[in-house]
Amino acid sequence: MIEIDLNCDMGESFGAYRIGNDDELLREVTSANIACGFHAGDPGVMRRSVTSALAAGVKIGAHPGLPDLAGFGRRNMQISPEEAFDLVTYQIGALDAFVRQEGGRLRHVKPHGALYNMAAVSRPLADAIAGAVYRYDPAMVLYGLAGSELLAAGNAAGLRTASEVFADRAYMADGSLVPRGVPGAVVHDAGEAARRVLRMVREGAVTALDGSAVPLLADTVCIHGDSPGAAVFAAALRRTLEAEGVLVTAL
Amino acid sequence: MIEIDLNCDMGESFGAYRIGNDDELLREVTSANIACGFHAGDPGVMRRSVTSALAAGVKIGAHPGLPDLAGFGRRNMQISPEEAFDLVTYQIGALDAFVRQEGGRLRHVKPHGALYNMAAVSRPLADAIAGAVYRYDPAMVLYGLAGSELLAAGNAAGLRTASEVFADRAYMADGSLVPRGVPGAVVHDAGEAARRVLRMVREGAVTALDGSAVPLLADTVCIHGDSPGAAVFAAALRRTLEAEGVLVTAL
Amino acid sequence: MIEIDLNCDMGESFGAYRIGNDDELLREVTSANIACGFHAGDPGVMRRSVTSALAAGVKIGAHPGLPDLAGFGRRNMQISPEEAFDLVTYQIGALDAFVRQEGGRLRHVKPHGALYNMAAVSRPLADAIAGAVYRYDPAMVLYGLAGSELLAAGNAAGLRTASEVFADRAYMADGSLVPRGVPGAVVHDAGEAARRVLRMVREGAVTALDGSAVPLLADTVCIHGDSPGAAVFAAALRRTLEAEGVLVTAL
Amino acid sequence: MIEIDLNCDMGESFGAYRIGNDDELLREVTSANIACGFHAGDPGVMRRSVTSALAAGVKIGAHPGLPDLAGFGRRNMQISPEEAFDLVTYQIGALDAFVRQEGGRLRHVKPHGALYNMAAVSRPLADAIAGAVYRYDPAMVLYGLAGSELLAAGNAAGLRTASEVFADRAYMADGSLVPRGVPGAVVHDAGEAARRVLRMVREGAVTALDGSAVPLLADTVCIHGDSPGAAVFAAALRRTLEAEGVLVTAL
Repeated sequence: MIEIDLNCDMGESFGAYRIGNDDELLREVTSANIACGFHAGDPGVMRRSVTSALAAGVKIGAHPGLPDLAGFGRRNMQISPEEAFDLVTYQIGALDAFVRQEGGRLRHVKPHGALYNMAAVSRPLADAIAGAVYRYDPAMVLYGLAGSELLAAGNAAGLRTASEVFADRAYMADGSLVPRGVPGAVVHDAGEAARRVLRMVREGAVTALDGSAVPLLADTVCIHGDSPGAAVFAAALRRTLEAEGVLVTAL
Repeated sequence: MIEIDLNCDMGESFGAYRIGNDDELLREVTSANIACGFHAGDPGVMRRSVTSALAAGVKIGAHPGLPDLAGFGRRNMQISPEEAFDLVTYQIGALDAFVRQEGGRLRHVKPHGALYNMAAVSRPLADAIAGAVYRYDPAMVLYGLAGSELLAAGNAAGLRTASEVFADRAYMADGSLVPRGVPGAVVHDAGEAARRVLRMVREGAVTALDGSAVPLLADTVCIHGDSPGAAVFAAALRRTLEAEGVLVTAL
Repeated sequence: MIEIDLNCDMGESFGAYRIGNDDELLREVTSANIACGFHAGDPGVMRRSVTSALAAGVKIGAHPGLPDLAGFGRRNMQISPEEAFDLVTYQIGALDAFVRQEGGRLRHVKPHGALYNMAAVSRPLADAIAGAVYRYDPAMVLYGLAGSELLAAGNAAGLRTASEVFADRAYMADGSLVPRGVPGAVVHDAGEAARRVLRMVREGAVTALDGSAVPLLADTVCIHGDSPGAAVFAAALRRTLEAEGVLVTAL
Repeated sequence: MIEIDLNCDMGESFGAYRIGNDDELLREVTSANIACGFHAGDPGVMRRSVTSALAAGVKIGAHPGLPDLAGFGRRNMQISPEEAFDLVTYQIGALDAFVRQEGGRLRHVKPHGALYNMAAVSRPLADAIAGAVYRYDPAMVLYGLAGSELLAAGNAAGLRTASEVFADRAYMADGSLVPRGVPGAVVHDAGEAARRVLRMVREGAVTALDGSAVPLLADTVCIHGDSPGAAVFAAALRRTLEAEGVLVTAL
């Protein structure tokens, strides 16, 4: 039976500020990537996110980001691999403290935003992140963009990796994402998104914007939690996948 | 044989900013309290502090502080016990990540500055901090001011505690420290400081500013690392204690 | 004709985080207190808030807070008067830069949250804040809680002051606010709130929780922008006041 | 008579952290670029830096940086021109508040670190910075790297600009600085540095690392305040220039 994981970024509120519908999304996804206080999240939010994910039976991962709260971790910063190693280590440990206290287990790591994007194309940065994860706990799973340097680095480091695809984003012929803003970059219809994911998991391919078939390994599908209809979209996607006989489950 | 621990706050540099003579002090102390990125310290500084302490054979503790880098964690903030629980948890985990990666073991926790002072007199805050430490790892040692609510809370929580005394600070008749700025508040002479510590460890008492004897449990002596002659002072104190037959060793 | 000013805190969004219905509230209030980047707000938010307020013809004030984004400036911090002087100066200047660039005029200052509350009861802190405002521009108006030390300090410094009352909050017999959480602390009905404000502006008094009449100078009414129905509440309050012949206008 | 300005970055301490020998350097330089709280500096440091510069008769400029205290503003961040416009505006206003309160006049702006470097090669970023300065006060002087896009943008915006050269850094044949780390990148001898500056101001040229002559406009020489012998270096450079008949004075 074909399996797929649905993951979602969570715990991205901060202090008096609220973002995302975490409670609703926890009913649909199988893995939660919880922000660690750099690009978003704070100790109280992290505690509540961990307890909610555990209560929902959703696997917990760390979602480390750049130290840029004002930019929500979405602005590239020229950090050294050594800095990346250390800031990923710091954030993993901070989140893991809550997970341990609550009796859970930290299962995976998925870098956030600009850190994710930079690590997709920079092997030294990817090696640093993979190294930090491995040295913290070699049993953890590293999430990264399908076909990215981050996955290559994780595999080279001896980590289990999860190749991430996007249900609601169009792909270029080279396997990269069509930049937001380009017409057709975003797939809004959940049925269409489900059909794309089905092809990914069944055929290992996606139809690119130019019509060509792009080979793509799909271990996990990213659900964007900060869009308004995220929970509805996730529910529809999950129902369609299950109706087609796909087992939606954590890795 | 009488034993005493010498502890020092460390890893309080930040980015381009340097504070303290950590390398020199690591040759004299037996326990290092390493800042965790809130009042001071950053991921790179934490990594280097952990590796240095391990290389020196010095026990490693977390030194969590208030989220106030501009005030170096020395300004009281009205945080709730729940907030204290979570920010202590966060910081312990962050530091522990480096300790685990480097193959060491996190042994104790000593709150910093205003958090330490507030927890000395507020039992709800003290209970929160002790609770966070215990729930993270019940084998850890909690450092607190001799006679403080923090030690009482730690003992009540089931933690091993370390009663901290100050070699270079004068005491009031009620066991509290004479505020800096009051004449006689600071003991500058290392010989005099050593004599005071000797009386503490041998007789369980210190002579207060008014001449009265104050009972005091001395498990560990705090060395102030940010004063200019800190390492020389620490070395002199240690030699004197050892010459008098006191075993200077971690708890 | 009796006059009253309606003021509201604004520009409290930060980065990707949104708080408040500023655009709606700008249609109802006559003075806007714009956050300056310490407890909330960022440079982009400040720019947009200033241009919106100018477009709406609403008077602009600085809304400086404590350096505590995680606590939204609502946690007391033990800062010195000198620190208060400097952080208020910094924030006033930062906001004024946008106001000057957009061709407006910075008219008033209202401290935020814990800074407002601490300055209501601490004369040294109040003197520092009033001093910072006066030294920056003696023509500015200082907003403070009716009967507070902040207003006394402002008057003593030679500033014009605005005595602030709360339409939706109950008062104690001593003129202080009934703490949130106490039954009856919050007035939810806009009609009732309007009647209370009418009595304040006409009779200079408010009925306290114990039924006694508390003398109160009402120059300006605070509208809480972060409550869900804030704009509707403000509109209803304004219509009622105007129907009763009160001129709603900036000082 | 040939004139040259000597400028130095100042006020880069933060909280408990000290960097630089500002008081000594203020005796040698003619322009001070004061950090504004983003990459370094805090409100108290800014106040003290402004009063010291005024007392020394040194011209005051704002030294805005990226919001990256941990990286001291030296790590490139991918900010938009609009973000640059707003964060430069914010920082100029914050510093100007202290200058106004102390009775001085803000005379120039020099971006710091990565912001300076990025604006040297990106015209959109340079235009944003120049636009922010001009819109705040068209009489201010914009400092930028000799031959940079920032100077071009400043001139195009209608600002007076100051072309900055480095006494202690080697140049490439294209006028860019030899990266630190490359052998010969740094000129350590003050006499040699003075000879290089003399050639710049007299001949409008510098000898590049490959021996070729690079044309270079020298309005102001940057003194690096954070190197240990900075004040001695600056004094020696100034004496040599004056002995050769160059007038060391602010623009």
